[in-house]
Amino acid sequence: MHQSIGRENPAPAEGRSTRKRLAILEAAREVFMRSGYGGSSMDEIAAVAKVSKQTVYKHFADKENLFTEIITKDMDRRSDELIRALSDTEDADGNLRHLARRHITSIVKPEVMRVRRIVIGEADRFPELARAWSQTGVERGLAKLAERLADLSRRGLLRVEDPDLAAQHFNWLILSIPMNTAMFDPDAQFTRDELERYADEGVRVFLAAYGVG
Amino acid sequence: MHQSIGRENPAPAEGRSTRKRLAILEAAREVFMRSGYGGSSMDEIAAVAKVSKQTVYKHFADKENLFTEIITKDMDRRSDELIRALSDTEDADGNLRHLARRHITSIVKPEVMRVRRIVIGEADRFPELARAWSQTGVERGLAKLAERLADLSRRGLLRVEDPDLAAQHFNWLILSIPMNTAMFDPDAQFTRDELERYADEGVRVFLAAYGVG
Repeated sequence: MHQSIGRENPAPAEGRSTRKRLAILEAAREVFMRSGYGGSSMDEIAAVAKVSKQTVYKHFADKENLFTEIITKDMDRRSDELIRALSDTEDADGNLRHLARRHITSIVKPEVMRVRRIVIGEADRFPELARAWSQTGVERGLAKLAERLADLSRRGLLRVEDPDLAAQHFNWLILSIPMNTAMFDPDAQFTRDELERYADEGVRVFLAAYGVG
Repeated sequence: MHQSIGRENPAPAEGRSTRKRLAILEAAREVFMRSGYGGSSMDEIAAVAKVSKQTVYKHFADKENLFTEIITKDMDRRSDELIRALSDTEDADGNLRHLARRHITSIVKPEVMRVRRIVIGEADRFPELARAWSQTGVERGLAKLAERLADLSRRGLLRVEDPDLAAQHFNWLILSIPMNTAMFDPDAQFTRDELERYADEGVRVFLAAYGVG
């Protein structure tokens, strides 16, 4: 979400600063996508963002900080969407199906898969970066999902003994097939129908194990 | 499997050639692990193997060919083990549990996870390499597993409508949790007990959806 949304009259200096910050994030995303993490420099990011290198460093302490910000922003947005989709309901099955379809279409996109390949490929050289992705992104989302599954279980709508494990099973039953294809084939394309079928079939298996129906 | 096994008196020249080939494969594995695919050269591999560069090229047309050979060898060995484990049986459930435990302990090992990270990280620069991994390795193993699941279903021991999908569900229910952790954390360690628990819980979910019990 853009930081300026909902603020009608930011002070001009602040508005400029926010715009620069967003321009830097946008440029960094573009440069990382093109050159990978190891191959990117703050110089290049500054040039693409059309700001001075000094300005880049004013907003972001270093390259890792900048990359982590991009990842975290993406992940947080996605896991919030995920949580909103799993709202209070009596129809746990229908809701999980809905959630699964949103989840897979928000994650299995060429640009997200590309960043994922980059982070995995750099994990040996930049372990902190990869752990940041894993912790701030994946684990945080899974923890929120686990909470919801535990809640549905307490209300008798699912039968879940280990919510963390169930959240992992849910996540990977939905995502694994297209995600693993995309990890090894940068040109992999999926239609919405294909993705929704993976989502539906994943939920079917999940509910066979964790449903009460 | 070493090519010389079961051959008692190879001609001396042939034995030397086989030894050199194995030394090159061993050296290549070491160099790829250390420097990634893009960062490795045939020169370095020749030096580590203590053979001439000419000899390397006599055995392997190029770097891609060499890397593919390593991957394919590893994968074929693993999927053959997998097939052996799922032998003719009336106890499909017990057999799948056994298979799952062997599968996870043979795949979720630091050196296999390391190669997997390398291949994913190089997929954008060397798509052919990554597709080779995916096609000769993963897909071939999944196809063999799908055949077995179809067979068990025909015999009334499982209820599988789409064997390819079921094989994918089985594979990712078993592997996804530790594998995805390892993709982002090169230092991730798993005890045998942890891996076997992932295997057992994955099989439990699989059988809830595909079992006849």
